[in-house]
Amino acid sequence: MKAGLKPIPFYKTEITDGFWKERQRINREVTLYAVRDRFKETGRFDAFRCDWKEGDPNKPHFFWDSDIAKWIEGVANVCRRHPDPELIRECDEVIDLIVKNQGEDGYFNIYFTVIAPERRFLDRDKHELYCAGHLFEAAVAYYEATGKRKLLDAMCRYADYIEKRFKTDRDTGFKTSGHEEIELALFRLYECTGEQRYFDLAEFFINERGPDDVPLSPTSALAYNQSHLPVRRQREAVGHAVRATYLYSAMADLCAYTEDPELFEACDELFDSITKRRMYVTGGIGSSASGEALTRDYDLPNILSYSESCAGMGLIFFALRMLSLNPDSKYADVIERVMYNNLLSSTSIDGKSFFYTNPLETIPYLYYKDNITEYYKIKYPKPTRSQVFKTSCCPSNIVRVISSMENLIWGEDGERLYIHQFISAETTVTRDGRDVRVTMRTDYPKSGRVEISVSGAPLKLAVRIPYFVKGNYGKTQHGYALLTLQDGESTVFEFDMTPRIVEARDEVLFAACKCCVMRGPVVYCSEAIDNGEGIRNTLLDLTTKIEEDYTGNYHSPVLRAEGWRRSTPNDAPLYSDGVSPLRKVELTLIPYYAFANRGESEMSVWLRYKM
Amino acid sequence: MKAGLKPIPFYKTEITDGFWKERQRINREVTLYAVRDRFKETGRFDAFRCDWKEGDPNKPHFFWDSDIAKWIEGVANVCRRHPDPELIRECDEVIDLIVKNQGEDGYFNIYFTVIAPERRFLDRDKHELYCAGHLFEAAVAYYEATGKRKLLDAMCRYADYIEKRFKTDRDTGFKTSGHEEIELALFRLYECTGEQRYFDLAEFFINERGPDDVPLSPTSALAYNQSHLPVRRQREAVGHAVRATYLYSAMADLCAYTEDPELFEACDELFDSITKRRMYVTGGIGSSASGEALTRDYDLPNILSYSESCAGMGLIFFALRMLSLNPDSKYADVIERVMYNNLLSSTSIDGKSFFYTNPLETIPYLYYKDNITEYYKIKYPKPTRSQVFKTSCCPSNIVRVISSMENLIWGEDGERLYIHQFISAETTVTRDGRDVRVTMRTDYPKSGRVEISVSGAPLKLAVRIPYFVKGNYGKTQHGYALLTLQDGESTVFEFDMTPRIVEARDEVLFAACKCCVMRGPVVYCSEAIDNGEGIRNTLLDLTTKIEEDYTGNYHSPVLRAEGWRRSTPNDAPLYSDGVSPLRKVELTLIPYYAFANRGESEMSVWLRYKM
Repeated sequence: MKAGLKPIPFYKTEITDGFWKERQRINREVTLYAVRDRFKETGRFDAFRCDWKEGDPNKPHFFWDSDIAKWIEGVANVCRRHPDPELIRECDEVIDLIVKNQGEDGYFNIYFTVIAPERRFLDRDKHELYCAGHLFEAAVAYYEATGKRKLLDAMCRYADYIEKRFKTDRDTGFKTSGHEEIELALFRLYECTGEQRYFDLAEFFINERGPDDVPLSPTSALAYNQSHLPVRRQREAVGHAVRATYLYSAMADLCAYTEDPELFEACDELFDSITKRRMYVTGGIGSSASGEALTRDYDLPNILSYSESCAGMGLIFFALRMLSLNPDSKYADVIERVMYNNLLSSTSIDGKSFFYTNPLETIPYLYYKDNITEYYKIKYPKPTRSQVFKTSCCPSNIVRVISSMENLIWGEDGERLYIHQFISAETTVTRDGRDVRVTMRTDYPKSGRVEISVSGAPLKLAVRIPYFVKGNYGKTQHGYALLTLQDGESTVFEFDMTPRIVEARDEVLFAACKCCVMRGPVVYCSEAIDNGEGIRNTLLDLTTKIEEDYTGNYHSPVLRAEGWRRSTPNDAPLYSDGVSPLRKVELTLIPYYAFANRGESEMSVWLRYKM
Repeated sequence: MKAGLKPIPFYKTEITDGFWKERQRINREVTLYAVRDRFKETGRFDAFRCDWKEGDPNKPHFFWDSDIAKWIEGVANVCRRHPDPELIRECDEVIDLIVKNQGEDGYFNIYFTVIAPERRFLDRDKHELYCAGHLFEAAVAYYEATGKRKLLDAMCRYADYIEKRFKTDRDTGFKTSGHEEIELALFRLYECTGEQRYFDLAEFFINERGPDDVPLSPTSALAYNQSHLPVRRQREAVGHAVRATYLYSAMADLCAYTEDPELFEACDELFDSITKRRMYVTGGIGSSASGEALTRDYDLPNILSYSESCAGMGLIFFALRMLSLNPDSKYADVIERVMYNNLLSSTSIDGKSFFYTNPLETIPYLYYKDNITEYYKIKYPKPTRSQVFKTSCCPSNIVRVISSMENLIWGEDGERLYIHQFISAETTVTRDGRDVRVTMRTDYPKSGRVEISVSGAPLKLAVRIPYFVKGNYGKTQHGYALLTLQDGESTVFEFDMTPRIVEARDEVLFAACKCCVMRGPVVYCSEAIDNGEGIRNTLLDLTTKIEEDYTGNYHSPVLRAEGWRRSTPNDAPLYSDGVSPLRKVELTLIPYYAFANRGESEMSVWLRYKM
């Protein structure tokens, strides 16, 4: 293991056209404001006044700091290219409140200021360091976008106070974060300020993590927040999926500096544990609603899937760091899988509502319980998106991630520019003191055509060959085609985007004898609004060709396929002899990322088939 | 509605041969003792000393009275035909302790004597009246079998005390039972003693039941114990399945006396609610482990099925009473479905161990949780039987039910003998003052041949035509063939027992595009011990004939069928393009009632198929 790629700062890349430019526009023009408005309505902004009293509405929750911090980070990202004085003013108001209500000692946390001041650093389950981490990330992003140091300076004081309490005095009720986030945030703070002590504190929190810390609750296993083993001995990805990916991301961050082979091995095996055995075909992870958690190998139920949006983003963070450590397409393939499926499905096409969980199958009536059945414990996933949640971690996380998608496109190792994702974009890299302009033009994933051109100087490239294409791409290394473009030269890749049938390993019980349809990186699904209720009684015909229909407006085409449907007569008894005959039907499949945008409708990714 | 059939007391019938004679022998020679021994080991017998003190082992639970009461009832049933002084002595010892520890006022309950005396009749959730009911049933059975009045007299005193507190003084913390049972038991007490006040108290408890009683707990819906509506307005079978069927049984008992058309309509709609929409193909009911409860129409998951043994027996109790009210084969068909599937599967072939829940599918590894995943809340069913449970209601219920299976065979309306179930048996009925001996000879369900003969006088018969056969059986009425046999005459029915393919209505999500195989009333299943792991990846071939193989020893034949299996290669990635080819395999299906008798093995009733 050797720290390989240097990321290109997202603001040095411009997304110029196509699918993601439109998603970024909606994120910037709609989602950013929708999230802000919902957060205002629910008291999350006002909470920063730290004047809530018993009896007031909108009692602050212990994770509210982080909701707003991620929104500020989103604003900072957006303002790089689209400066907006009004948004900056709103952020400054929050920042003024933070600084005003920050303790003399540097401490800042809404919940532990107004609700439970006597419990400061005593309750490992209350997201205190998690909130701090998100404030640190916001501070760095806001400073780098605006040059304003007020939040950054405040958060350095807070970080110093945390260092004093956790590392120097060691007088806190727990040793490491209950919900990881501060570890990776401290690396950002270090990179921004150059202060070694923040690096050291990040490393300290990572290395201290282990079974001699306190469990989150009497009933929770230490594995729930990855405290069951020292990090270097962890090999199986377990527990709360967001916590897991945030910790693993920080471990990979540490690796990039220390080049610690033992830590890299742990990271890589954890990555494989997730992506080879515990990941949905959509890139969603954390299959259990109970604990929002990773469970065991191949435990990937559909109708009871959880697959939280934040966990998908966490997997992107982790994979992106692994890609920097070790330029192998397996990481970029996973990023692409999450990008086009789990991440996109999290937000409605209009940008205003969100899935907290991204199920692989929904049957709406199962979600609605009447008075009689509401106490049965099985929770079916919500079939529609919401504008805000009680725990509303996902929406502002989406805002900051979509606004910095440029991060995912490319990286360089000083010699070679690696192209990970296919998005119309431009950037400039420096080679031997000369600027080299790199331009990518593509309508991916609608089309598999990708044109890359270079001007200013020759440039060595490594272009990811997506896992779903076959063919000869010349010299390749770890899934990347190696080539050199001369100054002014272009090259074109034509990736085959023919719809294909995908199956899961036998061990995935809930995909047994089913298939899903993918086109490029995009997973498709069947919705009842197109195909009628009862998708479980519909079979995809695998002997006929799947046709593409570009009349819809999902960017990727709608697919038309032949299928079969069985149905018992209306007057059939509960059980009857024989099996109902199949009748031929036409099936319409839409991108999974577009489901639940036309009202509530039964949906399934995995489909029965007839050979 | 008109009270139609009079049951023939079970001890007036002798089961002479065949399947049930052997099951009764095992019940009498093995199960009765196995249950006794486990109950002794766990302190259930000693608890009747009422001398448990804090710090002692085996703290009495609030339902232990009922466990032993059902065992005493089983002993009483057995001793009708197989008197056993040693068993009687053991019962007498318990009875002596009951009388010794009974209050001056007549009260008896172990838990509320030694653990919480100050809570008497205050906690509706603590099974106090349920325990009383089982003690009443035991007292009646024991008196009728042995002529010994000690327990009966004691329980009459207890019933009088309950009448005083609940009906006269009305000074209790709740109005009606938290777990129904006392209602039907009071009818037994009335029938045995002729004391009208026990009938009146039963009727009182039934009519008082409704939403003005207290809920069992702050979180439980009133529907959980069928208190959400006055009983005559209940139409949908809801809540805890055992409680439901015990209440409905008592409602039907009341109907038999009052011929109340409104109550009959409620009973019949509740019966249809269960059996037309909420019953497994095995006759199991109560699909939710959470609350051991009936949920909503067609909610019949397989791998998460609950289907408690006691609920199946409760359905038999209810159906048998409905059959008496209204001689329609739909009730007897349901009894048969439970008898040969859910009830039989509850006990191992050797008679020593029991299923509390009777799943339709098991995948053993899902049941075993490691330290990391044990806190996830989804409970998969236990793949093997246990000798005793913490809540061990089922084993002694099984003992009393199997020992009185004769109850299910026939009934008469004064004019006509109705034959409900096909079991080699003999009984005597009286016609115009003359004894008529009725003899049934059959190897059902192995064979469909049933020979019925009559001697002593001519006899009008009504013979149930099982729901699964077709053909002309002459004059029929509500599913029964009507005929008259002359003195000395025989008749033979040959029911077609060819294996058949059965499907569920489309609404049964977890049986969609699956079938099960039945032969006569017997549901078959596929076990991995015969067919290899991965039953979900195996398809039954519906184009080839299913063969019967009588070399096994399950009474019913083992079935051999052609099938297909898909499997992904060992080195396949989690998701791969294409679908694995099917290869031909031979499948062996065994009766569902015999599953999990050869060690732990994956099992499924519902099978994928290929047409």
